[in-house]
Formats: sequence, structure tokens, C-alpha cells
Amino acid sequence: MKIYGDRQSGNCYKVQLACDFLNIDHEWIDVDILANETKNDDFLARNPNGKIPLLELEQGKTLAESNAIINYLASGSPLYPSERWAQAQVLQWQFFEQYSHEPFIAVARFINKYLGLPDDKVEEYESKQTGGHKALKVMEQQLGKTPFLAGDNVTTADISLYAYTHVAHEGGFDLEAYPAVKAWLSRVAALPNFKAMA
Amino acid sequence: MKIYGDRQSGNCYKVQLACDFLNIDHEWIDVDILANETKNDDFLARNPNGKIPLLELEQGKTLAESNAIINYLASGSPLYPSERWAQAQVLQWQFFEQYSHEPFIAVARFINKYLGLPDDKVEEYESKQTGGHKALKVMEQQLGKTPFLAGDNVTTADISLYAYTHVAHEGGFDLEAYPAVKAWLSRVAALPNFKAMA
Ligand SMILES: N[C@@H](CCC(=O)N[C@@H](CS)C(=O)NCC(=O)O)C(=O)O
Ligand SMILES: N[C@@H](CCC(=O)N[C@@H](CS)C(=O)NCC(=O)O)C(=O)O
Repeated sequence: MKIYGDRQSGNCYKVQLACDFLNIDHEWIDVDILANETKNDDFLARNPNGKIPLLELEQGKTLAESNAIINYLASGSPLYPSERWAQAQVLQWQFFEQYSHEPFIAVARFINKYLGLPDDKVEEYESKQTGGHKALKVMEQQLGKTPFLAGDNVTTADISLYAYTHVAHEGGFDLEAYPAVKAWLSRVAALPNFKAMA
Repeated sequence: MKIYGDRQSGNCYKVQLACDFLNIDHEWIDVDILANETKNDDFLARNPNGKIPLLELEQGKTLAESNAIINYLASGSPLYPSERWAQAQVLQWQFFEQYSHEPFIAVARFINKYLGLPDDKVEEYESKQTGGHKALKVMEQQLGKTPFLAGDNVTTADISLYAYTHVAHEGGFDLEAYPAVKAWLSRVAALPNFKAMA
């Protein structure tokens, strides 16, 4: 099994973390997005959407989208519960992550950390703060009630949201106002087999 | 079962269409987003993220996120295949929809149709065109190979992407350049129990 990714990207880190938790052997292939390596013909043949992470099981058998990949990998394990309502909660948090969290927190981090907050991006960076804090508030509310996002047990939803929340400060987000989120970050990082982002 | 939604919203239409295909009885509760009805305490108690659609099975048992809702409703039916790889394909397309399609095509439509393309939104509207066409190209490539997005059979992935693709023209997207997408739109609309958007 091959994973195409960038170890500094939260979306890719989700896949690394799922493999760590599940003890899944894999070959990691570094892809440099700033060098446009997701835009060459070779990569586009594997993922027409030109994005990492990408899972390749064998030639021609590929899966894109970080959250789809980790659910696939965790399928059959407690990380991805098979019971219908429990699984629905996991998906709810993952779609929340892609729509209401990542586009604010990960993008603010990208502008700051990868691009070095250039003048022409300051406005966009600032516009990301409101949405990011809104997402953190939604998480805070849930994590004040349950130890993990989908309830009592850790699931792929926690992996999905851990990825960019634990580096939210790199996008300018101060987590002091979110004690339940901070406690949950520590809880995830204390799980067996957990490995930090490179 | 109650569904909170707006019949003109593609995200909400996904849920209506899934109920139509699956013959699921439900009570539809209209929520007016422009009147901020997703922001009052009553609604926020049901969905802290303040968004429709929302599924309510019974008091206190709610599920947000259109794609999580339709997968939950379709669980156990052929619309949401239980086989691991097949289900991964469905999720891949749904995460693609939320990240690479909806934020461009649905948002362009919202600015144009709901807000009436005011001067101060023209730039944002125009910035959405490139990403929207990129998403349509990715769909065109897949639909040139298989009749439905996840393969030979219709799944919730088709519902997710039908919702805003079939009204993409309201966001300024001309589908003439995407014959396979157009053929797929007709294929979906010809399915048994299909009902058009209100
Ligand atoms: N929805 C995708 C997002 C993936 C994504 O945005 N990947 C970035 C790196 S973190 C990328 O490949 N960017 C290159 C590009 O979009 O051109 C997922 O969850 O996998
Ligand atoms: N990711 C969500 C998006 C839902 C969404 O953006 N809903 C809009 C209506 S189409 C809404 O409730 N907007 C009100 C708001 O965000 O304040 C889903 O798929 O359900």
C-alpha cells in the first residue's frame, strides 16, 4: 500500500495517524505541493483532482480524500464503528471538518506557515479567523459533554479534527478559550501508538 | 422523523431526494436562513453549528451535515453500499463535493440567486468560477467512464453531487462543455421516484 503525501500537511497527517493507530504497514511517497507535484500528468492520472493525500492499493486502484481514506483503513475496527447511528456521528464530524473547520483553520495556517503571511494575503488570513473560532466553539461544546467527538470512544472523527486543531496556533488561533478542546488534544496524544506530526 | 430545511437549498434537497428514492415518510420543517432562523437559541440547541439541513429522529437525537444524513438514511440499501471499497468511493465523492465542488458552485449560485449578485459580491462570484469548472472537469472525467460517480449503480454520491450540479447554471456555469455530466444529470432525473427540486 502506498500513500502519497506531505508530512507537514494535516490532511496527510490524518492518514499517517490512522496507520499508526491501526499498525498498518505502508510506503510513504513524499509529494511537494509547492513544487506543483500534484499537477503533473503522472499524479493527475492517479488523482484527477490533483490533491494529496492519496492512497494507492495497487496500480489503478486509488482513493482520494483524507477522510474517505482513513475510514476505509479503519473499517472493521472500533475506530470506525459499524453501528449505523454511531457511524453517522463520525461522518457528521468529518463533513463538519471539511466544510466548517479546515477551510478556515488549515487555510489560515497555510497562509501563515507555508506562504509566510505575505501582504497580499493578510486580508484573507484575517477573514479566516471568525470561521475558525466558530468551529472551535462547536467542538468545545461537544467536548464539554463527551471525551471524544462522537462519544465515549476515539474514532476517525477525532483523527480528522485533531490534524489541524493541534496546529491551530500556527494559523493564529489561541486555544486558551477552549479548555475542553485542549484537554481532548492531550487525550488524543496520550493514546497508544500515537505519533506526533513530523 | 423531522427534517429542518429550505427547499431551495441544494444541501437540503439532497435529503429530500434521498427520502424520495427510499420512500421515507418525514415531516419537513421550513427554516429561513435569510431571516436568521438557523441562529436562534431554539435551532442552535438542535445544531450548534447553526446550519440546515438537520435530521431530528426524536427530541435530543439530531444529525447535521447533508451527506452524513443521506448516508444514514440510505444505510442498508443499495444507495449506500456496505462493501468496504464501494463505500469508500461514495465517501470520496462526497468529501470532494463538500470541499472542491459546493464551496464554488453552490456559493456562486447563492450570490447570484439569493443575493441578486450585488456589486460588492461580483469579485467573490467571479473567483468561484475557476474552482467550479475544475470540479466539473473532474466529474466529467469519471462520468465518461462510468454511468454513476461510484461506478455502475446510483449511490448517495450521485445525490450529493446532483444537488448543486443540476442548478449550476444559476451560478453562471454553462454545462455545454461537459456532455458526460449532462447525460448523468438526465440519468439521475429518470430514476424511479425522482422528484425535482421545489
Ligand atoms: N478534501 C481534501 C483536501 C486535500 C488538500 O487540500 N490537499 C492539499 C494539501 S493539504 C493539496 O493537495 N493541495 C494542492 C492543490 O490543491 O493543488 C482531503 O481531505 O484530502
Ligand atoms: N456542510 C453542510 C453545509 C450546510 C449549509 O451550508 N447550509 C446552509 C444552507 S444551504 C446554511 O444553513 N446556512 C446558514 C448559515 O451558515 O448560517 C451540509 O452539507 O449540510
